[in-house]
Amino acid sequence: MGELKGACIFGQSGGPTSVINASATGVFTQALKEENITAVYGAAHGIKGVLEEMLYDMSKEDAKELELLKTTPSSALGSVRYKLADAADDDTDYKRMLEVFKKHDVRYFFYNGGNDSMDTCNKISKFMAKSGYEMRVMGVPKTIDNDLWATDHCPGFASAAKYIATTTMEVYQDARVYDTGTITIIEIMGRNAGWLTAAAALASTKGAGPDLIYLPERDFDMDDFLGKVQKIYDATGKVIVAVSEGIQDKDGKYISSYGSDMTSNTDSFGHVQLGGLAYTLSGFVKEKTGAKIRAIEFSLMQRCAAHVASNTDIDESFLSGQTAVKEAVGGKSDYMVGFKCDRTNGYKCEVALIPLDDVANKEKTIPDEWITADGVGVTQDFIDYALPLIQGETPLPKEDGLPRFAKLKKVLVSK
Amino acid sequence: MGELKGACIFGQSGGPTSVINASATGVFTQALKEENITAVYGAAHGIKGVLEEMLYDMSKEDAKELELLKTTPSSALGSVRYKLADAADDDTDYKRMLEVFKKHDVRYFFYNGGNDSMDTCNKISKFMAKSGYEMRVMGVPKTIDNDLWATDHCPGFASAAKYIATTTMEVYQDARVYDTGTITIIEIMGRNAGWLTAAAALASTKGAGPDLIYLPERDFDMDDFLGKVQKIYDATGKVIVAVSEGIQDKDGKYISSYGSDMTSNTDSFGHVQLGGLAYTLSGFVKEKTGAKIRAIEFSLMQRCAAHVASNTDIDESFLSGQTAVKEAVGGKSDYMVGFKCDRTNGYKCEVALIPLDDVANKEKTIPDEWITADGVGVTQDFIDYALPLIQGETPLPKEDGLPRFAKLKKVLVSK
Repeated sequence: MGELKGACIFGQSGGPTSVINASATGVFTQALKEENITAVYGAAHGIKGVLEEMLYDMSKEDAKELELLKTTPSSALGSVRYKLADAADDDTDYKRMLEVFKKHDVRYFFYNGGNDSMDTCNKISKFMAKSGYEMRVMGVPKTIDNDLWATDHCPGFASAAKYIATTTMEVYQDARVYDTGTITIIEIMGRNAGWLTAAAALASTKGAGPDLIYLPERDFDMDDFLGKVQKIYDATGKVIVAVSEGIQDKDGKYISSYGSDMTSNTDSFGHVQLGGLAYTLSGFVKEKTGAKIRAIEFSLMQRCAAHVASNTDIDESFLSGQTAVKEAVGGKSDYMVGFKCDRTNGYKCEVALIPLDDVANKEKTIPDEWITADGVGVTQDFIDYALPLIQGETPLPKEDGLPRFAKLKKVLVSK
Repeated sequence: MGELKGACIFGQSGGPTSVINASATGVFTQALKEENITAVYGAAHGIKGVLEEMLYDMSKEDAKELELLKTTPSSALGSVRYKLADAADDDTDYKRMLEVFKKHDVRYFFYNGGNDSMDTCNKISKFMAKSGYEMRVMGVPKTIDNDLWATDHCPGFASAAKYIATTTMEVYQDARVYDTGTITIIEIMGRNAGWLTAAAALASTKGAGPDLIYLPERDFDMDDFLGKVQKIYDATGKVIVAVSEGIQDKDGKYISSYGSDMTSNTDSFGHVQLGGLAYTLSGFVKEKTGAKIRAIEFSLMQRCAAHVASNTDIDESFLSGQTAVKEAVGGKSDYMVGFKCDRTNGYKCEVALIPLDDVANKEKTIPDEWITADGVGVTQDFIDYALPLIQGETPLPKEDGLPRFAKLKKVLVSK
């Protein structure tokens, strides 16, 4: 493919991560350097910003703030959860996008997100090709869930994993200070894939990990769970359980819904709201053991704790965004910039261009053989896979002892 | 007072902090240097370890591990919640302690804790004096709650405050990624004093703090709260509320109990357990606004997140322990080693010996004039007070991208 001159748009989509903006910095700094890219736009709230023509002119931002973006958590441009219809069914959105692209001479579209966003990229690219509008579309992966197909891992996962492992180690210390019994249940994100919950096992490499790990890859059985907890509690008086928010029983029923079912008749005030899964399980464990229970949710912190992000993750996220621009300018289109890694002699990671067709809407869960036979732990294979990813500390600058996050001007391009 | 030769015991009591072991390092490294201290013992689980003669010989520990203790969270020796009877009512425990002290020639007792522990120190000291057993007793303060009397602040508070401010900033970023409305309710520790909840206001100095702060120093009124939330939600679509776990209504009823009351009749399975205060408030806010709500508890993380501890706090905690030993060897007894600070030209902090009689069992809450007139915020006075305390980053060493916490041998002294 030859040269293609025009503006570019970059958008962020789906749930944010601690390092999602590192990819943005990679895209923006590279795009601002490219001669064939005539203007660099950031879409406000992803695809919605394109449809509504809410585009920020990134050339108006201070270089220093763009650099700070690399260590600033959460989608700085704003994110969105918006699923495009199939163009065959309804092409309204696509036509509107084409209009905006034409108006601003946009020839490059970079989209940052998970499964759905890669699907969005793919659909847009196909529609534009069909419409005879020449443009290049690249997907930049992002998800703490680490469930994207065909890439070794996903930007965002490692920083969440580092938060989870670090915090589990700290909670482990705390849970042991008294000589009385305690059971701690930690709820971790990941609806369908257990990568994040498994990351708690990294704390075990330092002797401070969970006793039991419950992944959505395995059916959850309440009686078996309670039996296992009781056994460890009887033997040691201390139990730490890491549990994925997405665990289901053999009938596919979410365990997190067990609690609300039980009070569904009594919700007459309308303002009784049960806690999450950790609280629900606490109730069952309390009833079984009578022990002191602590329910902990890592909540939003696992995806936004930039102060403990993995520098490997930051660098790779940046690289992924930067590469998307370079490759698109070089002529590539319809790829996601994933990673191919080699762990045989230390850790080596290089970018891999994965056709959007191969990645869109597929979900990668933990390989069966990486889950222990009893279903409540992960093998050394998982540790060997994940440990290299959490290496390195974030260079996040501090001001007055607090993080100095980027402040963008967000100058809108006139419609 | 003249020279006093003998062994020393150090014990940890009450809820742990991120930097409680920094005080232990201060005590141990100094005591091991003192000629008049013939043996250095750590009590397993505080006063309980004294009563049960479970004493660790700290001279058996590697110097490197004692140094690592400085950045290791939670009570490394084990903690305890044990309230001594008044000796006048029942002197069994005191007699037993005297027996242990005599047996091991213990002439120095250092105790690390909050209000109750300072009371314990005081009682022990008075009993030993009355019994004619010469010994010196010093209290080393510790509490994330920052509620100890007569000291500028308490070791442990600053690191929890730094965690709370940092995490609030990160959650603020996360709560703003979508262009849909969100209300986030953050539950923070502090049963009777609002120091920790107020620390969320430090995030406001970076433009990323809570909209409303509810402290236990003020009566909580549900209707007023819901009205304020609704107003901000209507205006901006984003609301962040920081709320102390200890808030009560004007009748002294804990708001956290509102939820469980409502389901108390329906708890027939025994295993329904409501979430904490954040969840309870979420229910009310959801009913009022219909908004998307996120309930977040900072939970144990706020007291054990050593990876984001304040280095000022670490240094001061160390200093407090070290000073306790030096002053006791020098002849002092019956003091707590608190701080006296000057913030007029930068921050200067020096140790202050506070008579145990003055500190025991009194509770320090936020001064009235530091709370804004509307009762849902703190003034610049609080910021000026707290900001210097959270300065500096922990030197916590990492190994494989994870914290390297101290590993103690815990060699028990023969009974």
